Amino acid sequence: MIEDKYVILAHGNGGRLMRELINEVFAKILANPELDVGLDAAPINLDSDNDVFIATDGFTVQPLEFPGGDIGSLAVHGTVNDLAVAGATPQYLSLNAIIEEGFEIRRLTHIVQNLAAAANAAGVRVVAGDTKVVPKGHGGGLYLVTTGIGQRRRNLKLGMQHIREGDSILISGPIGDHGIAVLLAREEFDIEGEVRSDCASVLELTALALKFDGLRFMRDPTRGGLATVAHEIAMDTGFEVRMHENNIPVRDTVAMVCEMLGYDPFYLACEGRVVAVVASNQADGLLARWQNTIGGADSAIIGSTKHGDGRVVLETEIGGERFLEELEDDPLPRIC
Amino acid sequence: MIEDKYVILAHGNGGRLMRELINEVFAKILANPELDVGLDAAPINLDSDNDVFIATDGFTVQPLEFPGGDIGSLAVHGTVNDLAVAGATPQYLSLNAIIEEGFEIRRLTHIVQNLAAAANAAGVRVVAGDTKVVPKGHGGGLYLVTTGIGQRRRNLKLGMQHIREGDSILISGPIGDHGIAVLLAREEFDIEGEVRSDCASVLELTALALKFDGLRFMRDPTRGGLATVAHEIAMDTGFEVRMHENNIPVRDTVAMVCEMLGYDPFYLACEGRVVAVVASNQADGLLARWQNTIGGADSAIIGSTKHGDGRVVLETEIGGERFLEELEDDPLPRIC
Repeated sequence: MIEDKYVILAHGNGGRLMRELINEVFAKILANPELDVGLDAAPINLDSDNDVFIATDGFTVQPLEFPGGDIGSLAVHGTVNDLAVAGATPQYLSLNAIIEEGFEIRRLTHIVQNLAAAANAAGVRVVAGDTKVVPKGHGGGLYLVTTGIGQRRRNLKLGMQHIREGDSILISGPIGDHGIAVLLAREEFDIEGEVRSDCASVLELTALALKFDGLRFMRDPTRGGLATVAHEIAMDTGFEVRMHENNIPVRDTVAMVCEMLGYDPFYLACEGRVVAVVASNQADGLLARWQNTIGGADSAIIGSTKHGDGRVVLETEIGGERFLEELEDDPLPRIC
Repeated sequence: MIEDKYVILAHGNGGRLMRELINEVFAKILANPELDVGLDAAPINLDSDNDVFIATDGFTVQPLEFPGGDIGSLAVHGTVNDLAVAGATPQYLSLNAIIEEGFEIRRLTHIVQNLAAAANAAGVRVVAGDTKVVPKGHGGGLYLVTTGIGQRRRNLKLGMQHIREGDSILISGPIGDHGIAVLLAREEFDIEGEVRSDCASVLELTALALKFDGLRFMRDPTRGGLATVAHEIAMDTGFEVRMHENNIPVRDTVAMVCEMLGYDPFYLACEGRVVAVVASNQADGLLARWQNTIGGADSAIIGSTKHGDGRVVLETEIGGERFLEELEDDPLPRIC
C-alpha cells in the first residue's frame, strides 16, 4: 500500500518510493500479462505478415480533467487514433509520466484508471513505462507521453499520395467539441455551456473505412483542427480543397461559444473525429456505414478535391467563398 | 528559415509556426529516409526472425547541459542502453519534446544536434515525434521522452531468472560520474571539480557480453545507482548480493565530492555503465574483453551471488561488512 497522499521528489529517484508508486498505481491498474515493470525493455509480439507502425504523442492539456475525458483517456485516444488513421490496428503502448511534486496520488490514480479503461476499450496493452518527478513549479501537474505500436495489412494503399482530383472528403462528426469543452473547463471563462469533449477511439470508424477500396487517406483533426488537415491535403497534393460550410457539422453551443470568444471552429481540436478522403463514387457508401455507428452518427460529406493551386476554399453559408488560411496565432493552447 | 529566436506558445498549436519549428529544427537535423514528419504514424521494418523489444524513458535533467553531455545525448543513450542491456540492438526511436515557452531556439537546435549525433553513433533512427509547448512557469525549459524499438536474436536466455548462485558481478567502469557531473554543473554548488558524465551508449559493451553463453543478466545502473541494481537482483533472486568495496571503481573526485556533500556513490546515477552477471568461470574472460574497450577500460569484477536472504552486503575497505539498504530519500533529483 502506498501511504503518501502526495507525490514527492523521492517518488522519482529510483528507490523504494518509486517502486511503490509504480507498483501500486501504474502496474496494478494497468496490469496485463505483458507488463513487467522490472524490465528495462519489454518484448512485443508482432505478426510478420503485417506492416508495423509507430506513433507518439505528448499530452499537456490544461485542465487535466474536462467533460468527456481527462488527460488519461486522451493519452490513449491520441496515439491510438494516430495509428488508426494510418490504417493500423494499435496493439502496444508505452507510457511516460512527468509528475509535478505535490500532485495528489488519488488524482493520479483516477487518471491512470481512466487511461487503463480507454486502453482496454481500444484493445491496446501498456507494456513499457517510465515515471519522472519534477520540482513544484516546473510542471503542469501531470504531463503524459504515449508511444504506440500497431500493425496493418501489407501493401495497403493509404496516404496523401493516393488522393486524386474529384475525391470526396468526409468528417465523422461535429468539429470543435474537444477544444470548446477544454476551454469551458478552465475557470477563467465564466460561460455556462454543455459541451463534452469528443475524446474517443476512432477505431470503429477507421475499420469501416478500410473496407472501401476507394479510401485514399485518413487523418484525425486534432491540434489545428479541420482547417489544418485541409491545408495539409491541399499543400501536399497541390489540389484545391473545397469545403461547404453548410455541410460541416458544428454543434450550436460550440458555434455560440466561438462567436462569443472570437474563435473559428475550423481551427479547433477534435479528439474523436476522422477526416477521410474517398473516391467520390464510394462516399455515400462510407457515409451510410459511419452514420450507422454511435461515434459517426453525425458524419457528413463536407467537400472534395479540385484542380487548383493548393488552397483551401470554403463555400460559405450565404453563398460566398473564403480562403481558409493556415493557422497562425495560438487560439487555444494546451488542448491536448 | 525559422525567424523566431524563442519558442512561443504558437509553436505548439498545430499551425504554420509549429510546422516551421518541426521542419527547421527537428526534421532537418534528424533527417533520415524513414522520418516523414507529415505522417501520423511511421512504418518500421523488422526482421521476423528476431524478438522485438520496446523501451521508453523520460528526461528532465537539470541543468540541461553538463560536462560530457546534455539532455539531447542523454535522451538517446538512456533508451538505447535500456534496449542494449536487454540484449537487443536498438533500431528506431520516437522523440517527444515538451518545450517551455521562451526557450531559446538556438539552444534547442544545439540540443537536437547532439541528440542526432548520439543517435547516428548508436545506429538508431528517429522515425516519429511530437512537440508540445507549455506556458512559461509550467516546464523546466525542455523535457524529452524517447521510446526505442530494438531486436534481439530469438530465444536468447538473458534475464533475472537465469541468475544462479555463485555467479560473478561485473561493472564496466567507475560509478557516480554522471550524478556528480550534473550536481557540479548546478550553480548552487560552489565546488571546483573536473568530473565528466559517463553518458554514452553501452552497445559495444553489451555486444561483447552477449558473446558469452554464461551471461545471465545485464542492467545499466541509472537512477538509484549500483545499490539499486544490486537490490533488484537480491530481491528478485532471493540470493545475497555480496560486493567488495575495494573492487568497485570510484574516481577520486567523485569520492571527494561525495564526502563533502554527504552522498553515497553507490546510489549515484551512471549513464554509460553496465552491470553484468555472468557464470563465474567466464568472468575473467568478459573482464578482459571489456577492459580492452574505451568505454570499459576501468571495468571490474565487484561481487557475486551467494546463498542468502535477498540482502545486499558490502565488504568494506577496512574489512568489515555493511548492508546496503534500498534507496529511500532523494539524494540527487533530476539527474536524468
